[in-house]
Amino acid sequence: MRIEILCTGDEILTGKTINTNYAHMAQRLGEAGLEVVWGTTVGDDRASLLSAFRLAAGRADAVIVNGGLGPTVDDLSQEVAAEAAGVGLVLHTEWLARMEAFYQRRNRVMPANNKKQAMLPEGCEFIDNPIGTACGFSVLIGQARFYFTPGVPREMKKMLDEQVMPRLLARAGTPGVTRLKRFHSFGIGESRADEMLHDIEAMAPGVKLGFQAHYPQLETKLAVRGATHAELDALLAPLEAEVRRRLGNYILAEDAASLESVVLDALRARGGSLAVAETFTSGGIATRLLHVNGAEDLFRRGVLSRDAAQLGALLGLPGDAFSAATAAAAAQALRAQSGASHAVAVLVSLDAGADAMQIGGDINIGLADADGVIVREARLLGGREWVRLGAIEMGLDSLRRRLLGLPVDEKLDFERR
Amino acid sequence: MRIEILCTGDEILTGKTINTNYAHMAQRLGEAGLEVVWGTTVGDDRASLLSAFRLAAGRADAVIVNGGLGPTVDDLSQEVAAEAAGVGLVLHTEWLARMEAFYQRRNRVMPANNKKQAMLPEGCEFIDNPIGTACGFSVLIGQARFYFTPGVPREMKKMLDEQVMPRLLARAGTPGVTRLKRFHSFGIGESRADEMLHDIEAMAPGVKLGFQAHYPQLETKLAVRGATHAELDALLAPLEAEVRRRLGNYILAEDAASLESVVLDALRARGGSLAVAETFTSGGIATRLLHVNGAEDLFRRGVLSRDAAQLGALLGLPGDAFSAATAAAAAQALRAQSGASHAVAVLVSLDAGADAMQIGGDINIGLADADGVIVREARLLGGREWVRLGAIEMGLDSLRRRLLGLPVDEKLDFERR
Repeated sequence: MRIEILCTGDEILTGKTINTNYAHMAQRLGEAGLEVVWGTTVGDDRASLLSAFRLAAGRADAVIVNGGLGPTVDDLSQEVAAEAAGVGLVLHTEWLARMEAFYQRRNRVMPANNKKQAMLPEGCEFIDNPIGTACGFSVLIGQARFYFTPGVPREMKKMLDEQVMPRLLARAGTPGVTRLKRFHSFGIGESRADEMLHDIEAMAPGVKLGFQAHYPQLETKLAVRGATHAELDALLAPLEAEVRRRLGNYILAEDAASLESVVLDALRARGGSLAVAETFTSGGIATRLLHVNGAEDLFRRGVLSRDAAQLGALLGLPGDAFSAATAAAAAQALRAQSGASHAVAVLVSLDAGADAMQIGGDINIGLADADGVIVREARLLGGREWVRLGAIEMGLDSLRRRLLGLPVDEKLDFERR
Repeated sequence: MRIEILCTGDEILTGKTINTNYAHMAQRLGEAGLEVVWGTTVGDDRASLLSAFRLAAGRADAVIVNGGLGPTVDDLSQEVAAEAAGVGLVLHTEWLARMEAFYQRRNRVMPANNKKQAMLPEGCEFIDNPIGTACGFSVLIGQARFYFTPGVPREMKKMLDEQVMPRLLARAGTPGVTRLKRFHSFGIGESRADEMLHDIEAMAPGVKLGFQAHYPQLETKLAVRGATHAELDALLAPLEAEVRRRLGNYILAEDAASLESVVLDALRARGGSLAVAETFTSGGIATRLLHVNGAEDLFRRGVLSRDAAQLGALLGLPGDAFSAATAAAAAQALRAQSGASHAVAVLVSLDAGADAMQIGGDINIGLADADGVIVREARLLGGREWVRLGAIEMGLDSLRRRLLGLPVDEKLDFERR
């Protein structure tokens, strides 16, 4: 089945808004084994829309149109869809009633122009939007089935997953449920993960292995479709176990969990608490944890400076140059001072010179807890921002490993020595 | 002139990479008064590319193709361009020599398949790429002039600005230089800025006023084209002065400068230094400043906690609940303790409850310097992240205002009281 994604709206066409909706849709469809073969972007312009609809109808089997379902005059999707399909617009009375109730619950009167959102092409299939006033619909134009979705990302995502993808999978003659299993790791590059998992797809036909690198993390994905969720559970269980076995301790979280949520949960489960000392990471570790709901009870304090003397003054230490020994001393002092069960000090000595790919940093991480103090040393290379992001991740990941009783010194692919 | 942007590549088509190139190109063209009317995305597929080129040739006057100029087999732009133009490919010997020299300077031998990047459609116009191995070229397909650009964002941006836009402007019969003047502000919403500046365009015909809101900042842009840079200087000077007069102290930086660079420059100019105390902003203020090259000499220290007792312990204070008085005391204690010339304490009392648009926060900012201590109080409303980002910006902007001798208590549009 050939699928086209057709994005509408002046904000997208003129580049004022970056088209993240397109990427989300194409990716979700691809993960379900549905192939997007063409993307079109046009503005809120009647002639362009009509031409785009007709061209898409001529080359695709299914077309997802995004945007243009709002209440204002420049929202033209329903009108142009009706014209392209050769039908009129009719009032969808149920949707009108739903919109009126939506406004009533908020003690507001529905503006008159919202009625436009309930005018749908005659004979179309209504597609529900439980979280907004722009309902979707589906209509045949030429030989292609068109699905109209709202431009608001939250509403589009929900409609895509719950309404459009099941219909597309049914049309493609494939069973109706899909699953995306995600593993987040730190320390393994994309090409090595690909090597480590090269035969995973062969273990269960129909499962699609994919990667998304967003340094410093790598996301490993298993996408699959099947008849029932129970079938997918059974199919995926051995594969998931195998991915966990191969990527091992580098996996830091799965699915919606994150490195920060895993660290905070582990602290909470132990009745623990945390203090952090940062240098060149510049508050980047604290920023990941401290604002999270509930973190205020776990994250006791943070101290920051890139100056050894200032950091020493903050910690009641002599302020010696950054090293493994000062990292250990900093973590211990911070733990004692803050009363936290765990203290982490991430001391970065950045190479001198202007920013360039050759610029690196020596990283000394001290981790103190009730069992004593350990140090993790590393060198990262690849420019200032690369070093800073890597050091933030290493600090957090070393803490995760320590909290979960895993080795803290497993080598990272990015590490140089 | 009708312009189409045609993006190629499987990474873009499948959504693995978000298409930021498209947005950049469309925006730059729009700022120069060049209208993009259509966007197309296809993969690394010969038939799709050929079809896309032919469709674009039929509806546009100029087409910018992005991507597909690399050395690998799935890079097809030159081949398909030649086929669509009905010509063969010929070796561009000068570009081949340039590539060989490029590798030689790096003490490497050029891989054989790079030669492909010097095979260009016969009779095309060569377009230079001084920073990469993918040269651009321009060719006529049907009645439309096609410009081929590399997918690497850095290379694309340089080629667009320096090579493609002057050619497009010349074709459009408009003079050859463009200018984009940018003002960054904090505290004024887009619709109010639009009101405040509604008659600016009328002051100088041809100047285009635009806005880009990225909370908490707003970017106000003046785009213009003319015959010479001197002409643009003369045209823009009174308009820039007027924008500065109207937006006043809310303007925090212009063009490539940022709030952080302005603050750091102001500190440096005064021989000053800084210390910061943060709560719910969670290191977000330190993160903006401390990692910048040279900031290590200006940013003395940061202390963080969301717990009043912990923050008190860090500052040698009793640890009273956050208030205007504790913010003032925190800033003074921090200044004394760190030896910094300036100290900022941003204390946020977040509303209780689950995250929602109704969640707000009371913000107390203490600013201490040699002249004493002042406090800025505010309330922001709109969810946890909205409050956090707003408080970070307010802390930094209050510091900018204090450093520059501007009033710190001018009301923000986002503020609730």
